[in-house]
Amino acid sequence: MEQNNEIIYGKNPVTELLKSKAGVDTVFISESLNPSVQNYYIALAKDCGAVVKKVHPMKLKSLCQSENHQGVAAFASTVEYVTLGQIITRAWDRKEQPFIVVCDGIEDPHNLGAIMRSAYLMGAHGIVIPKRGGVSVTGVVHKTSAGASMHLPVCKVSNIAQAVRTLKEQNIFVYAADFSPQPIYKQNLTGAIAIVVGSEGKGVQPLVKSLCDDVVTIPMCNEHSAVDSYNASVAAGIIMYEISRQRALSK
Amino acid sequence: MEQNNEIIYGKNPVTELLKSKAGVDTVFISESLNPSVQNYYIALAKDCGAVVKKVHPMKLKSLCQSENHQGVAAFASTVEYVTLGQIITRAWDRKEQPFIVVCDGIEDPHNLGAIMRSAYLMGAHGIVIPKRGGVSVTGVVHKTSAGASMHLPVCKVSNIAQAVRTLKEQNIFVYAADFSPQPIYKQNLTGAIAIVVGSEGKGVQPLVKSLCDDVVTIPMCNEHSAVDSYNASVAAGIIMYEISRQRALSK
Repeated sequence: MEQNNEIIYGKNPVTELLKSKAGVDTVFISESLNPSVQNYYIALAKDCGAVVKKVHPMKLKSLCQSENHQGVAAFASTVEYVTLGQIITRAWDRKEQPFIVVCDGIEDPHNLGAIMRSAYLMGAHGIVIPKRGGVSVTGVVHKTSAGASMHLPVCKVSNIAQAVRTLKEQNIFVYAADFSPQPIYKQNLTGAIAIVVGSEGKGVQPLVKSLCDDVVTIPMCNEHSAVDSYNASVAAGIIMYEISRQRALSK
Repeated sequence: MEQNNEIIYGKNPVTELLKSKAGVDTVFISESLNPSVQNYYIALAKDCGAVVKKVHPMKLKSLCQSENHQGVAAFASTVEYVTLGQIITRAWDRKEQPFIVVCDGIEDPHNLGAIMRSAYLMGAHGIVIPKRGGVSVTGVVHKTSAGASMHLPVCKVSNIAQAVRTLKEQNIFVYAADFSPQPIYKQNLTGAIAIVVGSEGKGVQPLVKSLCDDVVTIPMCNEHSAVDSYNASVAAGIIMYEISRQRALSK
């Protein structure tokens, strides 16, 4: 996964990256791309001070380890990670109650990308991911996030449990996404909040869960069946929607 | 994607399968087959509502992983499709307001699987998918749905617009997932309802949208950016959650 870390591909993600003026080393453009589209990316790349290389589509495919590059890719300087404190300060600076998403070991880059996309659109102030035991912000994550990974602050921590402790010290109420009889829509989620979303198979780690202040649960209509959980990115999206809905209505 | 479905090949096995009227997704016919034999299988496939694809003999060989296909193969569907009427009747029989999800051309099997999983858990009575122009219930869909595809009734229609007309004739209010200034949580979604979710890139088709009674919209906090939509399965999950939430509160 880490090899992919620095390559961004697909028209939207590369455009977003270049427009964000983030550090970009090189932009790769497929020779098979329409010349006017090529010129568009060349102009954007020049604005960023990035080197442009025209390459054969096969070269692009092998660089991206994917066929979904749409003729353009960029080597970005690795995502600029921020500290947990910076995420919290960012919220208070905007005079908003902090709203932070903690991913406790998401393994599928498509899920992490979709979670980042939802977090950005729902107005979260940042996400926290672990240094080990979960996927990093790779090329697939950038692509699935539809470019949101360029805008949403990401904090990478050695220890999720420690991050939860820090959040609590800052008077942020921390919820674990888990099972409880109380449905999420009966809880008040308008204050300073962090939600911890667990990994696809195992959910939130027991130690982390024990540190959380409370649990949020999306009700299920057919819960006695073998189908007993939502897809990780769908569950995270629904929880963020509920937080966003309550905040909008409380204004 | 479809390779994960059960493939049946050879003239007799395919004839038997088609005559049994069992669920068949797709029939593959070799271009090298005698035209009258081709027509025989095309007629049988049409009787079953299966899609016909004429392919090169080499393609058939690779699909079947065998040279003994005799020019014809079929993907048997493990799903038993139902009619739209059966889905609606099922809801009324349970003394519930119908809650139906219409997928207008979802292309990614992971998205369709995640949508089926959410639909099942949110208490939807069934989903509608198109015969063409979208992914069928393949092996990947089964896997991603975590088994929900075995429990949720699926109706496959030739024409999504016609399905919307039928739903409206049955006094079911049909919403398209699209953009409007009104957030979904300000709408009353407790009655008989169907929601139409569009494809990943294009959204709901214009004709279908024009037939719908109204639009539902998930608000976005950063809507002026290039990141301008949710992942298809996340959006569908949030809409179903909102319907489910309102129904639970109105009881």
